[in-house]
Amino acid sequence: MQLESFIPPSRVLMGPGPSDVSKRVLDAMARPTIGHLDPEFISMMDEIKKLLQYAFITKNELTFAVSAPGMAGMECSFANLVEEGDKVIICKNGFFGERMKENVERFGGVPIMVDDEWGKKIDLNKVEEALKNHPDAKIVAFVHAETSTGVMSDPKALTKLAHDHDCLSIVDTVTGLAGVPLKVDEWEIDAIYSGTQKCLSASPGLSPISFSNAAKEKIKNRKTKVKSWFLDLNLIMSYWEGEGGRSYHHTAPINALYGLHEALLILKEIGIENSWKKHMDNHLLLRKGLEDLGIDYLVNENDRLPQLNSIYIPDGIDDLESRKKLLNNYNLEIGAGLGALAGKIWRIGLMGQSSNKKNIDHCLESISKVI
Amino acid sequence: MQLESFIPPSRVLMGPGPSDVSKRVLDAMARPTIGHLDPEFISMMDEIKKLLQYAFITKNELTFAVSAPGMAGMECSFANLVEEGDKVIICKNGFFGERMKENVERFGGVPIMVDDEWGKKIDLNKVEEALKNHPDAKIVAFVHAETSTGVMSDPKALTKLAHDHDCLSIVDTVTGLAGVPLKVDEWEIDAIYSGTQKCLSASPGLSPISFSNAAKEKIKNRKTKVKSWFLDLNLIMSYWEGEGGRSYHHTAPINALYGLHEALLILKEIGIENSWKKHMDNHLLLRKGLEDLGIDYLVNENDRLPQLNSIYIPDGIDDLESRKKLLNNYNLEIGAGLGALAGKIWRIGLMGQSSNKKNIDHCLESISKVI
Repeated sequence: MQLESFIPPSRVLMGPGPSDVSKRVLDAMARPTIGHLDPEFISMMDEIKKLLQYAFITKNELTFAVSAPGMAGMECSFANLVEEGDKVIICKNGFFGERMKENVERFGGVPIMVDDEWGKKIDLNKVEEALKNHPDAKIVAFVHAETSTGVMSDPKALTKLAHDHDCLSIVDTVTGLAGVPLKVDEWEIDAIYSGTQKCLSASPGLSPISFSNAAKEKIKNRKTKVKSWFLDLNLIMSYWEGEGGRSYHHTAPINALYGLHEALLILKEIGIENSWKKHMDNHLLLRKGLEDLGIDYLVNENDRLPQLNSIYIPDGIDDLESRKKLLNNYNLEIGAGLGALAGKIWRIGLMGQSSNKKNIDHCLESISKVI
Repeated sequence: MQLESFIPPSRVLMGPGPSDVSKRVLDAMARPTIGHLDPEFISMMDEIKKLLQYAFITKNELTFAVSAPGMAGMECSFANLVEEGDKVIICKNGFFGERMKENVERFGGVPIMVDDEWGKKIDLNKVEEALKNHPDAKIVAFVHAETSTGVMSDPKALTKLAHDHDCLSIVDTVTGLAGVPLKVDEWEIDAIYSGTQKCLSASPGLSPISFSNAAKEKIKNRKTKVKSWFLDLNLIMSYWEGEGGRSYHHTAPINALYGLHEALLILKEIGIENSWKKHMDNHLLLRKGLEDLGIDYLVNENDRLPQLNSIYIPDGIDDLESRKKLLNNYNLEIGAGLGALAGKIWRIGLMGQSSNKKNIDHCLESISKVI
């Protein structure tokens, strides 16, 4: 057995996540571990909560980071909000809609699928039709920023539709948070989850989430216990929210939370609106360069995520070989297509720390060499 | 809102976990983040798998680290192995037996509780009686190293009992791994989970687990889907085990895994048997000092975990006040009692990097000053 420390190669991370993690965040993760019930640590958790409220633009009390990656944030949302027999309208326009379906089924809910083509935004008319056909639906779930295609949908309009039909909304913004405008309170979103390794540029492993009071009420009034002990918000609340002392629920990922704290500080220093603007500016810069190379986008101009650029692989170019070259010769990671888009598209991330002119230049130059 | 980087105080971690994390492990976590599908990262995952097989002393193919803390390892074990209506014998001699019950119930199983007093080891006769009374039981679940009391039970004998009655065993060794003898293959354990923040002295946030072929078969032949998408081993196997390419399941906690890799390397350098011996030697040293202070142990001499020393709080000493003094004046974290033992015992950890003479001296001196 080889017995050496792992020294990772130096990569430029321009795939669908993780994004480049700054030295500040890496250094934060290397600070000495302290206890998860240490008063100093609890104070830092309170700051993370406030900083996440800032990022989500919400006053939601139930705002914190699930102690596991983004997919656990998804599971946390569905496990807590779906009860046996609940009908859930799932808008599926990419890979992650299918995962939502899996979640709903496993928790005993009934998924009602509203399908849109991969690469298109969610069609409000179809969702409204589904809501009319299923007046007993309880939840509308959808992906704000589809990581598999680079499409942005409209959480504000979709949540309004949900509310007009007495449903709660569950929003996946794993790739969206800090990259595109998102206003949880103003848009009245009920449950939303994200990841740390996209536009926040912290290391993967945590999932920021936020729940409205309406969602919180639904969780408190469940008829059955949540089908997960680890993700049961009734229990987790007592660790993240407990007044007069926190109860032990599980051991938090201490050093990962140091990193998230630092990444959120950086976001606060930049300013959330400036962060949105930065992602858009750099997207336009990359787009210009790609157009000059004769490369087309998968997604309609108006529906593109600036932080995730899905482009057609030029004719005659071998997907796997080219990405291997990019990685091995240029240390550049970009993303492959998923599902039916495998071999057809590449996904170029411009998320968080990865969203900068130097990376864009390096990316354009490297791609121009392999095509 | 305060806007400063979080600089943790310097603590000596001698509670029930987390334990002190070495500079080597902290530095590893600060190395640049790379992608979770990067071939270099996949190679490191393979090494982690081999190192965990070394730590568990097993050849089990299904050996890896769940991307969340120890409690998710517990949930992963029960979610995958328990099906609707399955009877599970749960040996409860502390806090974590109750958590097992919660897990079994939430996944639709029927818990059969075998209770022992907190602070006593699991009574084999009672377990045998329960197995005789419930010939249709499918699983025997128990805690190897009870973190709430400092008691060690006998996984070898309990697993043999389980097998004699056609049951699988699920073993909680969150606090046990690398601290006391544990031989997964030789003892024919079916499913076992641990944590990174105890005797391995990595940061919290990951849960090493290992499943026998019998357990794997049961999972593959389930009649119903696992009631968790995030923890479904049928899906996770394709990321940790996939031949000819790994499938994306979720984004692994990259930097936390760097840390675990380094912590496991340190264990391999020390040697697993030497690690057990170190924990015992330092336990005897601490015990001598505590006895000199007139302090008594909760647990019978033969059943004590060397890495977690549960001692009675001396008469007339205020629990909370004293622990506050230890933390604030001596930077020493020790653990409180849980449940009925709250206010009655302290738990002094000597786990992994925390298990050394300097810490023992500091602990004894600090305690002598506050009692």
